[in-house]
Amino acid sequence: MNNTKTEENVIDYFEKLFPLSSPFVRGIGDDCAVIPKDNGDAYVITTDALVENVHFIKEQISPFDLGYKLVAVNVSDVAAMGCLPRYCFLTLALGKNEAWSWIQQLAAGVKQGCARYGIELLGGDTNGSKGALFLNLTLVGEGKWDKIKYRHSAKAGDIIAVTGFLGDSYGGLRILQEQLPKNTLSEKLLRSHFCPEPSVEKGVWLASCLGVNAMMDLSDGIHTDLGRMVKKSQCGASVETSLLPISQELATLSLNNHWDARQMALTGGEDYCLMVTIAPDCFEQIQRSFYETFKEPLYPIGQITDKRLEVTYLAQGLPASYQLSPFNHFI
Amino acid sequence: MNNTKTEENVIDYFEKLFPLSSPFVRGIGDDCAVIPKDNGDAYVITTDALVENVHFIKEQISPFDLGYKLVAVNVSDVAAMGCLPRYCFLTLALGKNEAWSWIQQLAAGVKQGCARYGIELLGGDTNGSKGALFLNLTLVGEGKWDKIKYRHSAKAGDIIAVTGFLGDSYGGLRILQEQLPKNTLSEKLLRSHFCPEPSVEKGVWLASCLGVNAMMDLSDGIHTDLGRMVKKSQCGASVETSLLPISQELATLSLNNHWDARQMALTGGEDYCLMVTIAPDCFEQIQRSFYETFKEPLYPIGQITDKRLEVTYLAQGLPASYQLSPFNHFI
Repeated sequence: MNNTKTEENVIDYFEKLFPLSSPFVRGIGDDCAVIPKDNGDAYVITTDALVENVHFIKEQISPFDLGYKLVAVNVSDVAAMGCLPRYCFLTLALGKNEAWSWIQQLAAGVKQGCARYGIELLGGDTNGSKGALFLNLTLVGEGKWDKIKYRHSAKAGDIIAVTGFLGDSYGGLRILQEQLPKNTLSEKLLRSHFCPEPSVEKGVWLASCLGVNAMMDLSDGIHTDLGRMVKKSQCGASVETSLLPISQELATLSLNNHWDARQMALTGGEDYCLMVTIAPDCFEQIQRSFYETFKEPLYPIGQITDKRLEVTYLAQGLPASYQLSPFNHFI
Repeated sequence: MNNTKTEENVIDYFEKLFPLSSPFVRGIGDDCAVIPKDNGDAYVITTDALVENVHFIKEQISPFDLGYKLVAVNVSDVAAMGCLPRYCFLTLALGKNEAWSWIQQLAAGVKQGCARYGIELLGGDTNGSKGALFLNLTLVGEGKWDKIKYRHSAKAGDIIAVTGFLGDSYGGLRILQEQLPKNTLSEKLLRSHFCPEPSVEKGVWLASCLGVNAMMDLSDGIHTDLGRMVKKSQCGASVETSLLPISQELATLSLNNHWDARQMALTGGEDYCLMVTIAPDCFEQIQRSFYETFKEPLYPIGQITDKRLEVTYLAQGLPASYQLSPFNHFI
């Protein structure tokens, strides 16, 4: 067993330690777990935390944005299953220094996120903290059992596609880290970083399409997340990096600041758009309907292969190499 | 509005900010929220965290006990609604210093708790922490919608009863704080502190009894928790402190160490037994059946009154006063 203390290895360890005992539930290893509701309906459940100095720096994000983002990152997991978010539960560990007004602003951000996505906050747990701030949200969503999409069902030959620009949130993070001046371009990336907009409508729509085989959200960068998908689906993937959708803002700022936009698109986390794999003979039709429905493109970026666990990157058809170390929260 | 930053006030603030929009769910303000399942069945959901240096000192509790306790404190909330625990979701924020063996022991404790109470772990979130350890569990339980018990339905005249000894866990905490020697007596209280045993069977049994009007678990001490119940039920209460069930171990250690056992029974948290209010004409019958079923007494400790929000303490019928400041995690 690989016992280097990474997020991946801890999850693998728990997954082996807690095998499912019932065929009526789905457990660890996807964006959400699934439990039965009634007559073909199911609840999906996810839980995601934001930890001070790991996921955010308190001085850099407003409490309102922090509350909103906490809701949004969980909504993205429910969207990735093709479900609608419904109920949430909030755990807070707050230090002595958080003013009452700070808590009110955080609550207002959570409320705005809940209102935006049609969620009811039904409970939680309020605690003190002697150290860092800690926020956790558990979100319950709802969908049809037989429409729910998983990451374990990608098939060799499937077209891999994403629903939005990649790397913008990481661009926002670098603007903060490198203390770059704020202007219209950088503001756009900062908004992507602070206020992600998960793709609930697109997720539900894609889940209803015949030919969509696998789906997940992009929270840790396409390199890490595609690696997770091929592992679960026991397949491989080939990505044409010239097809990675990069926003005008990120492209321009990358030129100005000597960033490698493609590498940022591959490794940057927190994009919160969706990645789907679609049977090749269905792709064109789905892509056309997607554009007609959302007035936005569905971007093909590569193909699922039968080369087990092998992910290759091409640039205009030629092998390309990038610095692709995934983010490890423990280091 | 009272905006002193206590747990109570933060919860009140969120409860007002997030009013329920549907009659088919129950939200903030009870041990669990309730959402519909099917044909008269419901899911109950609770979430409870353990924060390092607030709820535990890492050097004082084994990772196994910590994992077990995290499950147990959440199970107690499900028991308090009269439901059976089913599925759980674990969030961890782990620092650099936690060895892989520490994580394995923690996982083993969680697994033992899940096995003991028939729970499947279905998911979670693993994070780094730059400061304190943080553990959160969300637990989903199941029960019949019309059998679920709440804390808002106590009625004037009801007998208040508890299902176990009070103050033992607090006794264990004081043994640690005062660095008292370990012996058979103190070991018993330390086990109560580290390994609480929530009352699932008793909760389900009591919820099925006609005449049980309100129920909750005792997590923050009877003074605080009874205060919550009378607030939700818009009533008052009178407690005869000579009736508070105090274990032989706590009684003896109190004598030896000049502790006030009754005060500890009133204010000590983490007992995780249940408090119920029972219509007076049903009490004797329920008490008898309870003893026949569990071979343990159901302890009457007082009565619900119509004196709104007023909780009085008596000793052999005469007014008694105790130091009753509730624990505030934020101070």
